[in-house]
Amino acid sequence: MATEIERKYLLASDGWRAEISQSTRIAQGYLSTEPGRTVRVRIKGAGGFLTIKGASLDGMSRAEFEYPVPLSDAEAMLALCPSVLDKTRHLVDAGNGLVWEIDEFHGENAGLIVAEIELPSVDAPMPQPGWLGAEVTGDKRYYNSQLTLKPYTQW
Amino acid sequence: MATEIERKYLLASDGWRAEISQSTRIAQGYLSTEPGRTVRVRIKGAGGFLTIKGASLDGMSRAEFEYPVPLSDAEAMLALCPSVLDKTRHLVDAGNGLVWEIDEFHGENAGLIVAEIELPSVDAPMPQPGWLGAEVTGDKRYYNSQLTLKPYTQW
Repeated sequence: MATEIERKYLLASDGWRAEISQSTRIAQGYLSTEPGRTVRVRIKGAGGFLTIKGASLDGMSRAEFEYPVPLSDAEAMLALCPSVLDKTRHLVDAGNGLVWEIDEFHGENAGLIVAEIELPSVDAPMPQPGWLGAEVTGDKRYYNSQLTLKPYTQW
Repeated sequence: MATEIERKYLLASDGWRAEISQSTRIAQGYLSTEPGRTVRVRIKGAGGFLTIKGASLDGMSRAEFEYPVPLSDAEAMLALCPSVLDKTRHLVDAGNGLVWEIDEFHGENAGLIVAEIELPSVDAPMPQPGWLGAEVTGDKRYYNSQLTLKPYTQW
């Protein structure tokens, strides 16, 4: 088990695109979208993963359990999910060993781009690149689980 | 992934108790009780397990995915579940390499005892011991996931 401390932002400009170090397509769905016990199935590149997340007490940190699973299992479990999210994850170096994960959504969530950073502690210093927009940490509409229920193009 | 073919019965008498080969206490809860995508956390003896089951098309067989997880993870995930089922699983030899799993429930489901057998195919011959009662295969009230929502003592 890990406790995940994550902050989430919109993007103010396309400046981050010049700094991309890696881009990976991700398909993911939810076996449970219940906020206190989400269960996510993900295919990322050639790997399958099952991830359970607990309730967020402060909007930033929550218990997380992740297990690799065979790709064929992930494909079959994705088929059990009511809808599947399609996005490209771009990595951008954030300095001090930190990394921005910038998710560019496709399909029903096209137009939405969100930058996330995982911090070593709740009060860790936050990098502030010029392209960073408004913080949306804790805004449930941006939870990936919620985006499968109410996609961005329907907001 | 495995396809599970399972038949479930009530018990007509206590005759099976003389044939028990092993008894193990099991605690389990559900991260999702959605019938088409249940997600079960189980502690069985000293082991933790995460199990995903798909929809049952015919009431007997359904896709099943099971992964061992660290005991400490299973304990923490069990704490995310809205309620926890407590039972003792007794094993009874059924001949031909088959085995009866007889679940004796405790707590809110005390008084309920159910025998299950996993068959190699839908039309495999069924053993018929004298202590076997009425078949309840496919009756959703007896699904363990449903017993966490509506326990036997409240029927």
